[in-house]
Amino acid sequence: MEARLTLAGLPLLARIPPSPRALLLALHGLQGSKELILSLLPGYLEAGFLLLAPDAPRHGERGSPPSAKSPSYVEEVYQVALAFAEEAWRVAEEAQSRYALPLFLAGGSLGAFVVHLLLSRGFRPKAALAFIGSGFPMKLPQGQRLQDPRVEALYQTPPAMQGEAYGGVPLLHLHGTRDLIVPLERVERTLEALRPHYPEGRLARFVEEGTGHTLTPLMARVGRAFLEAWL
Amino acid sequence: MEARLTLAGLPLLARIPPSPRALLLALHGLQGSKELILSLLPGYLEAGFLLLAPDAPRHGERGSPPSAKSPSYVEEVYQVALAFAEEAWRVAEEAQSRYALPLFLAGGSLGAFVVHLLLSRGFRPKAALAFIGSGFPMKLPQGQRLQDPRVEALYQTPPAMQGEAYGGVPLLHLHGTRDLIVPLERVERTLEALRPHYPEGRLARFVEEGTGHTLTPLMARVGRAFLEAWL
Repeated sequence: MEARLTLAGLPLLARIPPSPRALLLALHGLQGSKELILSLLPGYLEAGFLLLAPDAPRHGERGSPPSAKSPSYVEEVYQVALAFAEEAWRVAEEAQSRYALPLFLAGGSLGAFVVHLLLSRGFRPKAALAFIGSGFPMKLPQGQRLQDPRVEALYQTPPAMQGEAYGGVPLLHLHGTRDLIVPLERVERTLEALRPHYPEGRLARFVEEGTGHTLTPLMARVGRAFLEAWL
Repeated sequence: MEARLTLAGLPLLARIPPSPRALLLALHGLQGSKELILSLLPGYLEAGFLLLAPDAPRHGERGSPPSAKSPSYVEEVYQVALAFAEEAWRVAEEAQSRYALPLFLAGGSLGAFVVHLLLSRGFRPKAALAFIGSGFPMKLPQGQRLQDPRVEALYQTPPAMQGEAYGGVPLLHLHGTRDLIVPLERVERTLEALRPHYPEGRLARFVEEGTGHTLTPLMARVGRAFLEAWL
């Protein structure tokens, strides 16, 4: 069943199986929406995941995303990410008290960065998926200003550099070798940074040859298998 | 149902689901057995795979594996691999004519090398898994002799260097970062060699941080999800 919910004062899209086994909070990326991210996760409902997707600030029914033409584009993007992380945390708490089910987390692109933000701040899902994203903020293009100290802090100490705070939460990255938006090298750097803080077999990557910045059906399928291992 | 079969004159262990959707031919590694490889693939039967596992030459009920103390150890290992590949092909043909189901292939360690051998020779499963192995033969230790020209040929032209012959069969490598038997670097070299011959999204790797030369339950689960994508 597909439903529109309000949790923590935010509009959410939900897909609710007849007998849910777990909650999956799904965070979309830049210029995405709750509808888009859920359309990219086929088979999860059938596998017993109750899917919950909020719109990020300035996305979906909440306005217009930052424009790449703005001189403060990057700052605006990470203001969205920071606010989205806080909202996601509150949504997760309300959802868990409503449904009393184990909680899982997934994010795509900027949503994957939000997954890293959440883990680095002590958020504790059973397992998490980072689709086509990394634990580092994007490279700062020339001419971009950063004035917000909270965004500056993300560049000074990216989430991936705070691996000791992740609590070993099982985390799978799913990425294409031809991703020109978030190069695979950013995922490799993320894993390198997290590696010393993770016990064996809880941190992993699935890499598709030839794939660009796309959350493919194969990635979705492999991600689901990973989550099910921690159910 | 677990059963012992004879196909192509060889003893096999079979696990047969009530309504099989596909055949999975599973090839064990050095010092392994048909029983061992099937014990490492939980959940496949339940997902509708009819599992078939033969003993390799000199393995299981067919004798003693090559001894690492033998001066011709490496040659003996690859004689086993070559013969195993031929046998697996014949078993697959008989199995397909008996069951009329789509065929999938999986191999672990030396069995993964046999998967590569088969693909490089035109064997065409719907998709294949290479657990903790690569498309290159092991490094030749000092003092090892190669006299068999067929083994010499594997070193001259390893399967992974014949990517044009793989026919783009979907292939997933599953590997640990701390594999000391088959270093991850051998998988990376394999993918590098195959990459130019593969269309987008059909060649992939799943890499577990901290894992050694072990086919883990998580790898088995991810492998199953990959196969199901091509069913």
